[in-house]
Amino acid sequence: MTIYLDAMGGDNAPVQIIEGAVAAVAEYGINVTLIGDEAVINNVFENRGLSRSGIDIINATEKVEMTEEPVAAVRKKKDSPMVRGALLVKGSHEDAFISAGSTGAVLAAATLYCGRIKGVSRPALGTLVNIKKPVMVLDNGANADCRPEYLDQFARMGAAYIKAAAGVEDPKVGLLNIGTEDIKGNALIKEAFGLLRDDPKVNFVGNVEASGVFDSDADVVVCDGFSGNILVKAVEGTAKLTFGIVKDVLMGGALNKLAALIIKKDLYEKKDLLDPRAYGGAPLLGTNATVIKAHGNSDATAIKNAIRQADKLVRAGMLSALEEAIKQQEENR
Amino acid sequence: MTIYLDAMGGDNAPVQIIEGAVAAVAEYGINVTLIGDEAVINNVFENRGLSRSGIDIINATEKVEMTEEPVAAVRKKKDSPMVRGALLVKGSHEDAFISAGSTGAVLAAATLYCGRIKGVSRPALGTLVNIKKPVMVLDNGANADCRPEYLDQFARMGAAYIKAAAGVEDPKVGLLNIGTEDIKGNALIKEAFGLLRDDPKVNFVGNVEASGVFDSDADVVVCDGFSGNILVKAVEGTAKLTFGIVKDVLMGGALNKLAALIIKKDLYEKKDLLDPRAYGGAPLLGTNATVIKAHGNSDATAIKNAIRQADKLVRAGMLSALEEAIKQQEENR
Repeated sequence: MTIYLDAMGGDNAPVQIIEGAVAAVAEYGINVTLIGDEAVINNVFENRGLSRSGIDIINATEKVEMTEEPVAAVRKKKDSPMVRGALLVKGSHEDAFISAGSTGAVLAAATLYCGRIKGVSRPALGTLVNIKKPVMVLDNGANADCRPEYLDQFARMGAAYIKAAAGVEDPKVGLLNIGTEDIKGNALIKEAFGLLRDDPKVNFVGNVEASGVFDSDADVVVCDGFSGNILVKAVEGTAKLTFGIVKDVLMGGALNKLAALIIKKDLYEKKDLLDPRAYGGAPLLGTNATVIKAHGNSDATAIKNAIRQADKLVRAGMLSALEEAIKQQEENR
Repeated sequence: MTIYLDAMGGDNAPVQIIEGAVAAVAEYGINVTLIGDEAVINNVFENRGLSRSGIDIINATEKVEMTEEPVAAVRKKKDSPMVRGALLVKGSHEDAFISAGSTGAVLAAATLYCGRIKGVSRPALGTLVNIKKPVMVLDNGANADCRPEYLDQFARMGAAYIKAAAGVEDPKVGLLNIGTEDIKGNALIKEAFGLLRDDPKVNFVGNVEASGVFDSDADVVVCDGFSGNILVKAVEGTAKLTFGIVKDVLMGGALNKLAALIIKKDLYEKKDLLDPRAYGGAPLLGTNATVIKAHGNSDATAIKNAIRQADKLVRAGMLSALEEAIKQQEENR
């Protein structure tokens, strides 16, 4: 198995990316191949005195910038880590590719160069949150405009993923909606509700409201990419804001600072519960490869977690599980 | 001025609703007319020993239940508080109506019986959050399916509202989107972006992500009702979850409980920042009346706040401001 890692993508590239790779080798013994400007990468290893053990480097001379139009950029920059990485993992059940670069570009590179799993209409970006139990929200931004049947595929892919990633048998699937009653929703969601309810291969548990995603029975919550992105970013922003408020209280005077000293460690541990970076990034489901989009502001720990997650997904046979889930759908039709 | 209050709507009706009215009279000297089953209301006053000073009662013998189909229910139940209330405030610049009952039914009653302001395509439900400054999010669920031009009207109505409610001059309007770049979004949002950018009467500041709604420059954030509902409920659910996590930490052992004693009061005060009940409910913008939907689980404090907000809106001339904003739009065409 090889985990390919885009060394140049993300806000903290290349230093935090490389340090994350080094940490993954040290902690988990997972071998990593960095893709990026070799001279720059070598420089980081030398300047930081990092161990090269367990790490290979593939030189890639170009880089997709955050400001570039994704599809045009990955069509043009064939020697970028994103394109090289996508080509290296295409069709592989043994390898995975991780990038913290532009979400649009990772999606475009994976879709263009890995292709789709047979039968998949639209690959989707999943986000795993693990507050009370693992819940996969998808799509989280790959498809701003969806058709109802896409959501049924997201349900099948999300269920296959969460079974592989978290060992959940017969995962429950919910539909993100603005009310729990069956008749709620916009036109897209009302139609998707019917498809999900009638799909014998989906263990559909009905609508889930945005306030209840983490309290619901559902292991997978499906939605269009626009709504999913609103949900996940609202959770992220509110958690940050709320912990900021708590922090302000804890800094408000000498006695409060004493309280802060007492609970700091416990609070810090819990804080990660609501930090998407703790879960190792967002899997891209539906392309013919194992591809993970790490958060743009990933630090070394987030990258290390993404590498561990990629390793786990490959070992669990995620790609085969997705192929099987979509194949069953084709057969049902 | 009369503030009409649905005494029978909401999870905590009638007791908390009535106590909220009594508190509003006592604290702000605002007169309130309760609408509902007179015998039940009288019973609450007697059993609780509440003062009837400043409070009138209008007997209404029917009640719209949460489980009823909203439009059918308000068409049929003409002697329900919702229908009576809507008819009483129709066209009035002096009065307001508040209900904590079914959102769908409040919307249906207000739209059917108050009518729309001339030129308004779709009334919208706004939510005011006031963490760093007041921000109005609309639509928050009245219109699950929107056309781009609705969002331009929401912008105008939201701006007129926040000017009246919070005294903000030339309010800035943002568009809820999945990225800050101009080209982001689904088909609806991309088209709405162009309309907002080109509307000379809207001070458009571009896209706002769900993670940044409360940090943005925008005073008003417009969205379709589906996305807005996802946003507001995600904020609500996450804030509750996060404070729950902090509470668990504070209960985790004797020393932590000491810390809890120290910061409890400060924390409790801040907690309200993220509680939508603190802001007195959601105004319905675009019907020919001042109508406020209080949160379904409103307690007496939430109702008291809603009454104060309604009083403020009437005094500030919100209805006239909305009429003016929509009239200017008509003239621009």
